Order: sequence, then C-alpha cells, then structure tokens
Amino acid sequence: MAMRSTEGEAFVMSARLMAISELVADLPLSRVMLANDARFPWLMLIPRRANMEELFDLSAAEQGMLMREITAVSRMLKELTKADKINVEAIGNATPQLHVHVVARYKTDSQWPMGVQWGDPQPYTEEKRQSFLSELRAGLRKLGL
Amino acid sequence: MAMRSTEGEAFVMSARLMAISELVADLPLSRVMLANDARFPWLMLIPRRANMEELFDLSAAEQGMLMREITAVSRMLKELTKADKINVEAIGNATPQLHVHVVARYKTDSQWPMGVQWGDPQPYTEEKRQSFLSELRAGLRKLGL
Repeated sequence: MAMRSTEGEAFVMSARLMAISELVADLPLSRVMLANDARFPWLMLIPRRANMEELFDLSAAEQGMLMREITAVSRMLKELTKADKINVEAIGNATPQLHVHVVARYKTDSQWPMGVQWGDPQPYTEEKRQSFLSELRAGLRKLGL
Repeated sequence: MAMRSTEGEAFVMSARLMAISELVADLPLSRVMLANDARFPWLMLIPRRANMEELFDLSAAEQGMLMREITAVSRMLKELTKADKINVEAIGNATPQLHVHVVARYKTDSQWPMGVQWGDPQPYTEEKRQSFLSELRAGLRKLGL
C-alpha cells in the first residue's frame, strides 16, 4: 500500500542519512545533502515530505518537481565536477525514506562502470569538504529553482 | 555538452540493451524492455529519442513524461510482483544510451539490500518469460498512458 503524507505531518530526516551526509541546501521540494565520501561527488535529494518511500508515493505535482530538481542538480554537478556521467538512483532498500542519489562518475573512478556501492566511504578532509560545499551552494543558487 | 535529439532523427535502440532484454511494449515516450534475468523482475524504460544520455538531455516536457511513466510502471510492477521495494536507476556507464532500470526487489533476493549489479544474469525459462511478458503487457495496458 502506498504511504501518503498526511498534510501537516512534519518531515523528519532519517538519522541514518544524516549520519553519512551534510546539508547543502533546501530546494523547493528536496533537501540536498552531500555524502561524506570523497570517492565520488555524491549528492542526495530527499523530498521534504513525511512518510515517502517510493517515487510514486509523491503526488503527481511533487513527482514533476522532483524530476526538475534531479535534472537541474545533475546538470550543475556534471558541469562543476567535469564528470563523465551522472548516475541517478532511487534505491532505499536499507534506508526506506525516499532519497535520490545523484552521483558524478568518472571513467577513472574505483567502481566504474558498475553502480556505486555504499558501505566503504572515504571521508573528505575538512578543508575539501567545506570548499566543495561552498561550490555546491553557489551552483544551486544559480539554478534559480 | 548536452546531446539533444535532432527532430526527425530516428531512435535506434542500443544493440547491447537489445541483447539482454525483450520488448514488452511502447509507452508514449519510452520503450519498455524486460531484462532476461530471473534473479529480479527487471524492466528498462528507454525514451524513444535519438542521442540521449543524461536525464537532462530530454526536454522539460519529456522529463515530465518519463517521470510519469517511471512511477506508473513502478507501481504496476510492485503490485504485480508483490515486491518489497522498487529500485529506479539511471546509470548508463557501460551503455550510454539513456535507459532507466525499474527493478522489483525482495528482502530475500540474492543482492538485498545492495543495488543490483548486472553481469551475471540467470535467464528465464521460455515458459516463465512468456507468461511474465503477458502479465506485464496486460499491466501496462491498464495504466492507460
């Protein structure tokens, strides 16, 4: 059975997602988080709605907003990182709260051409993390979403 | 640089995708293929537009259509297969032509909770493949897309 948000019910971000990532910014629908994993420039978009698990749990209007946010963020991330490919994934097997991975991939990265597998992150240095967060925030502001 | 379809340029499906899957049906935007891999009920949606690689290569209208097709197909597949979770993935590292995996996952499947990795398919028996194709085609017709 689809889980639908009760209007007014508060969005609460999964503790599991918060533990592995840091807030970049909020878009109209989604919270954008940066995974603390220097192996790949790795963002997550988390629709700020309660009780969402599958893409189809969102309303039709929210689905459209999410697609616009995914594509705008993907294009920005690819330009910023000069990546070879953007991978977009809504998995959620281990962490049910709906979240969409947007990952910049390089032909030279350690898991190319396979999909990234989580579980063995390599944390950023504090300096690199802060400078990447600044670049991402500037890139998101320019999107004008 | 984004690759955009030249109007009138013919959609040609990647030989690599054709080799591992079979036509289920065409939706308004996407060709729906069934991966010949009995480990997971695994569909691929391939927008019938030439020269697409990233989701953001599609026009805004096509992005909206694709999201509607992804969510409708995901809901149908989850109901049909009684899956625990639907995984939606646009990867395309090995096969650049834009294609979206829609995979029915079970807590009991061989790769749960990780994302599925291709490369070791277990083909369906001919009988199972034909009966699943029939069920999928009936399910897609009912979507009324």
